[in-house]
Amino acid sequence: MPERIYNFSPGPATLPYSVLQEAAKDIVNYKDRGIGLIELSHRSKEFMAVAEEAEQLIRELLAVPDNYKVLFLQGGASSQFFMIPMNLLGEGKKATYLNTGTWSNKAIKEARLFGDIEVAYSSQEQKFNRVPRDDEYTVAPDSEYLYFVSNNTIYGTQFKDMPRADCMLVSDMSSDILSRPIDVSRFGIIFAGAQKNMGPAGVTVVIIREDLLERAPDNLPTMLKYKTHADKGSMFNTPPCFAIYCVGRVMNWLREQGGVEAMQRRNEEKAALLYSAIDATDFYRGHAQKESRSMMNVSFNLPSPELEAKFIAEAAEQGLDGLKGHRSIGGCRASIYNAFPREGVEKLVDFMDRFARENG
Amino acid sequence: MPERIYNFSPGPATLPYSVLQEAAKDIVNYKDRGIGLIELSHRSKEFMAVAEEAEQLIRELLAVPDNYKVLFLQGGASSQFFMIPMNLLGEGKKATYLNTGTWSNKAIKEARLFGDIEVAYSSQEQKFNRVPRDDEYTVAPDSEYLYFVSNNTIYGTQFKDMPRADCMLVSDMSSDILSRPIDVSRFGIIFAGAQKNMGPAGVTVVIIREDLLERAPDNLPTMLKYKTHADKGSMFNTPPCFAIYCVGRVMNWLREQGGVEAMQRRNEEKAALLYSAIDATDFYRGHAQKESRSMMNVSFNLPSPELEAKFIAEAAEQGLDGLKGHRSIGGCRASIYNAFPREGVEKLVDFMDRFARENG
Repeated sequence: MPERIYNFSPGPATLPYSVLQEAAKDIVNYKDRGIGLIELSHRSKEFMAVAEEAEQLIRELLAVPDNYKVLFLQGGASSQFFMIPMNLLGEGKKATYLNTGTWSNKAIKEARLFGDIEVAYSSQEQKFNRVPRDDEYTVAPDSEYLYFVSNNTIYGTQFKDMPRADCMLVSDMSSDILSRPIDVSRFGIIFAGAQKNMGPAGVTVVIIREDLLERAPDNLPTMLKYKTHADKGSMFNTPPCFAIYCVGRVMNWLREQGGVEAMQRRNEEKAALLYSAIDATDFYRGHAQKESRSMMNVSFNLPSPELEAKFIAEAAEQGLDGLKGHRSIGGCRASIYNAFPREGVEKLVDFMDRFARENG
Repeated sequence: MPERIYNFSPGPATLPYSVLQEAAKDIVNYKDRGIGLIELSHRSKEFMAVAEEAEQLIRELLAVPDNYKVLFLQGGASSQFFMIPMNLLGEGKKATYLNTGTWSNKAIKEARLFGDIEVAYSSQEQKFNRVPRDDEYTVAPDSEYLYFVSNNTIYGTQFKDMPRADCMLVSDMSSDILSRPIDVSRFGIIFAGAQKNMGPAGVTVVIIREDLLERAPDNLPTMLKYKTHADKGSMFNTPPCFAIYCVGRVMNWLREQGGVEAMQRRNEEKAALLYSAIDATDFYRGHAQKESRSMMNVSFNLPSPELEAKFIAEAAEQGLDGLKGHRSIGGCRASIYNAFPREGVEKLVDFMDRFARENG
């Protein structure tokens, strides 16, 4: 194994090294068939098996009920921002949104093109440093769904428990899917771009309750109806084959690691290590309020932008890469998804301790 | 090099072996930086350079004028079927379409949701065995554009010269882009899924004249406006990084091969070899009329479906794979895109000769 840096990037992000090695082999010669993985027809039995396995592993790992479809779509989570209201809302229909960061803000903007959108909560004025408690919002009674972002990548906040609502939930889980068990049956739609916890960029996983497939207005473009993709097992048109393959290999790795329960324990331990380092001195300040802290993205500040720049540069020299915070809030951010190794967190904590002593 | 089969699949299709080898190395450890290519943040300087190089190579190889943008989008060519009319048409606006196969048929269906569509020519009744001569259609004078599919993958037909029109051309070049020089300045939009001549599935290249970016109605979802992607260099949201990387490597290979002029010569030679074998006996019958024959996809029939099945099976045993025709017309099809080696065509021609003698 060549020397690997610790990659704290928010996505595309660190993947299991074993998956990279498998992909490297399969790209050149898939299962010694004399053809590369990315040269396989998507209609070949080899690739159909790849896609089928990826779907089955997601179903198993998240205990997806039988009345849900698992789709592999393109266009990123950003395309779900409009596809969801386009398929589920329309003239006179309402949905409630919780605004907890950049991504929910963007989703609200797109949803307003297709329905009556109530924003029941916003932490925008507090720089999105928290997610709401259940008693801090009211879901409009005639809402088709309650929309929320389960983990806010930029601000480092996360819903510990899923929100309360009488209607179905719809959630952007791009940055924490498969990091912990969830009760899928409470959701109408769960979606996630793959490039954080599932694989490379280029595929978006959508888990959708079957009855919702029938809701789309007739006059939607074919490619924008969920039903189009559900009816054809995500093969209505050529799917992003390589990204789907990688998702399957990451899911296989995840199962070998003990599944989402085991992953949750490790993620909690990794996050606890890092937050302890932040709380140990006044030198570091976590962006998120404690009750809202994310296990996946840890956003924090140092006493000055100059020290933050120095911190990021010196960390990079130590092989601790990608610690720069998002341009919208600055500071530092450590993204520690499923595949990010505990040793990397330990190295960062050691570095933080040293840096604080030398510069505090 | 392990033994490679000859892969005649219509797409995803054969790629240059050197590109597969490069990708295999870079996936595990990109430029010895200790991080895999598919783990790189799309905002990192390393990946920005990858995307920039891919774009510049496409510009160079196709001599794309400065007033055109080159975009890397998701959703396949199928998403362009609706994005084009959604961005360029609207209430009372007209476009003319030439219907030369399955893919133009689908494009027409989607376009009708957004404008007044005139189908000026259709070869549907002749099972799409030809494309029109210039004197066989009239472009409606108030058309915003003339839409055509430059190469019809399923039926094996191709426009030798681009259609005549006073308005701008819009073309789906998914299956023959970069196989020959084109005059980009006659086009408003050229688009192509990558998985035939450019790389793996998962990215669609769109070449669009800059003034068209301003035409979209305000109420389109953000992700469906070309301008969104053009303004952000295809990085409004996380792009399909791996597919873009591969496109860049294939473009680099293409330049090394002598560019599109050299490629056209080789493609003409490969196609001539194969059509000669078809025309040599009555045993094989080409689907396309001679003047409309494609250099990229050669569709043909044998005397019976039973012989066709036998032909495909015996060819596969010889390492000549993927020769089954599309389900909509049956028979056989050999897809011989840029990266398909001449030796594979020679081997197929030898096999065809032997098979005809043994079964004729």
